[in-house]
Parts: sequence; C-alpha cells; structure tokens
Amino acid sequence: MPGKVFVSIGMSLDGFSAPESMEGLLATPEQREQDPRLDHWMAQWMELQGWLFAQRFFQERLHLGEGGEEGSDNDIVRETFERTGANIMGKRMFDLGEHAWPEEAPFHVPVYVLTHERRSPWERPGGTTFHFVNDGIHHALDQAREAAGERDIRISGGSETVLAYLNAGLVDELSISVAPVLFGAGTRLFEGVDASRIALKPLHSKSSARVTHLTYTVHPR
Amino acid sequence: MPGKVFVSIGMSLDGFSAPESMEGLLATPEQREQDPRLDHWMAQWMELQGWLFAQRFFQERLHLGEGGEEGSDNDIVRETFERTGANIMGKRMFDLGEHAWPEEAPFHVPVYVLTHERRSPWERPGGTTFHFVNDGIHHALDQAREAAGERDIRISGGSETVLAYLNAGLVDELSISVAPVLFGAGTRLFEGVDASRIALKPLHSKSSARVTHLTYTVHPR
Repeated sequence: MPGKVFVSIGMSLDGFSAPESMEGLLATPEQREQDPRLDHWMAQWMELQGWLFAQRFFQERLHLGEGGEEGSDNDIVRETFERTGANIMGKRMFDLGEHAWPEEAPFHVPVYVLTHERRSPWERPGGTTFHFVNDGIHHALDQAREAAGERDIRISGGSETVLAYLNAGLVDELSISVAPVLFGAGTRLFEGVDASRIALKPLHSKSSARVTHLTYTVHPR
Repeated sequence: MPGKVFVSIGMSLDGFSAPESMEGLLATPEQREQDPRLDHWMAQWMELQGWLFAQRFFQERLHLGEGGEEGSDNDIVRETFERTGANIMGKRMFDLGEHAWPEEAPFHVPVYVLTHERRSPWERPGGTTFHFVNDGIHHALDQAREAAGERDIRISGGSETVLAYLNAGLVDELSISVAPVLFGAGTRLFEGVDASRIALKPLHSKSSARVTHLTYTVHPR
C-alpha cells in the first residue's frame, strides 16, 4: 500500500502559519537594532512554534541540546518524523533551513525542494538528501512516492507549497497545530484555498497545555 | 463573585465566523433563484453551525422539534446556555434572530442589544427580554453584569461585537467551536484584533466527530 500524503503545520488561532516576514530568523544583531520588526516577527514565530521547540525529540533532531519534554506532544513529533519516508518543501523553507538546520539535517530521508534553481542533489550526513525539482508539484510527488515506499510523504511547508498540493487534491491528511496566540497579521495558511473543492473530516484532536493538534482527512467535494 | 465575560462562537478552520453575507437566512425562494450565492452562503452557515443544530438541547430551545444528539456536544451547548445570566449582541445578530427565533426566544435571560436605534425593552415569553443599549459596550456590560449576578455574561456575536469586547480587554474566556470546513471567503472572526494586547492560555479542548471546542482564558500582554 502506498503511503499517505500529509501536512503537519503550525497555525495561530487567527489562521496565520508565519509572521509577515521570516527575515528575523537570519538577522544580525545590528539589523535587529535597526528594525525592531525583526524581533517582533521572531517572537511571533517562537509563540507559534514554542510547543515544538520544547519537545525532547525535536531538540535532539535539531541538535539543540539535551532535555525537553516527553509527553503527548513529544510523541506526536516523533510519530510525525517516523512515519515520513520523504518530504516536499518550498524553496523559501529550504533557504531558511539551510541556515538553521545542523549539518546532520533533521529529516534523515530524502527531501524534494520545489525550485526553479538547477542544483545537484545535496547529501547531508545522517541520511537526508535534498533533491531540487524544477518541473512542478506532480513530478516532485512522483519522486517522493518512489522514495518513500510504504511510508508517508510530508508536505512540509511553507504555506504556498501546502496550498498548491491541497488545491490540486493531492493531500490525504491535514494536521494543524493550533498555537494559543493571535497574530493579527502575517502569512495566512489558507490564503487562496479552493474551498469549493475541499471537504474535511475530523480524524482526531489531541491537546496539551501548549497546543491543540487538529487532524482531518481531506476529500474532494 | 461576579460572573465571567465569555465568548462562545463558531469558526471555520480558515478563520471565518460567518459567510460573506447572512442574507440567505431570510431570502425567499424567488430571491434564491435569482441569486445562487444565497444558497451557497446558507450552505456555508449550515456547515459551520451544523454540529449545533444537531444537538437535542439546541433543537428544544429553538423549537425545532423532538430529537437530536445527547453526547458531549449537547452537554457543551446546555452548559453554555445554563451558565449565562445575560447576553450581549450586535444589532445585525438581533435582526436575524428576530426573524429566526421562536416567539419564546432561546435565551430565557436578559439580552442587551448594541444599537443606535432607540426602542423600549421587548419582553418575550419564557424570560427573554431584549434591552436596546445606545451608549456603548461598557454601559451594556454594566447592565448585563447587574442582571447576571453571579452567573456569566455571554458576548453572543457577531464577530464585530466579539472583537470590540476582546480589544477592550473585557473578555475573560474565549471558546471557539472549530468546524471541519474551509470557507475561503467570508467574515473573519479576528479581523482587526489588537493582537499586541491579547494573550491566550489554553483552558481545555473538547472534540467530537463534528467539531472541536477550543477554550482559552484571555489575558492582557
């Protein structure tokens, strides 16, 4: 049986999956001093992803140190990584990760990066190889399926990439980690969604003091 | 101890609390035939509120007939009505309800309607009296507190009224019933929220096959 195509992504209660800009993530102290929005965007990002950074499995995968929580959120993070046989992501997410991930990138499986840039596969220690796909979302998914075998394929992000797969009817399962924060502005996860073609069925909902994970199966309508 | 000020409102997964228009609710068959958007908006409304219309307590309160579900969602609806000692709502919500509610309006407690219209209190059988408040949200809340005693005050809707109280720092508890549907367009619940002043803490999350109720306490930040 082929694996499922799934999304697992964070969202603020008011529907944003990222701040207005992710520049804060790469900014120097000088840049932050000149533009206080950079700090604000970083603070928003950490409020959105704070539950994730607190988890032991994530800290180990990202080489952030020893420790972290080991409750139900940690189980969810571990299961999410372990079920994944291949990832697909957009170029902007890759560009940010290229700076933020450790040398041993956290995926340990092939990653297909949607881009116009031509680049040879980039192999990292630990089993992550980044493949740069220039011919569209269907071709990237074909390659990811081939690589994943019976394991699942994660559409990792960002929101444009998630929406492209969702609107093309290619996503089987959608898991949204709703953080207890309001952004007011930023990048809306579902901006441009083709709502007339997508039906959702609740699969399960799991919550902790930090976050609620809402999981749906996705169907045509 | 005075009661809490709470919001309990439905939202689509992509953040809408109502369709682009509620005209569908009052449209005649002729109007529906001329403008197919009316049917679409009604269908969206029912997808958002479908879980609620399925509950026994709600069906009884709205005089929709005998029957309905009696599980955890029904308990939530009953508890929401029973904790409420007074309601506050916007004029548009009242106008729709004036046509849709039975003569024995479903609240059975005082309702304060924010409006510029001057109108004498309107008493309905069963204990619901609508009071029309012309001098702003604080004054409406004062009156509601007085009426509610130790019971809670519900900011019933629509989203503009909810946001006015939220942005003024007057809401203690926010409960969002997330329906498994994407709207793509409509009235955004949190449009214009002053995110810089509002912090949320998860209180609990309860879900069924129909809906997930996310409840937060609201704090200044």
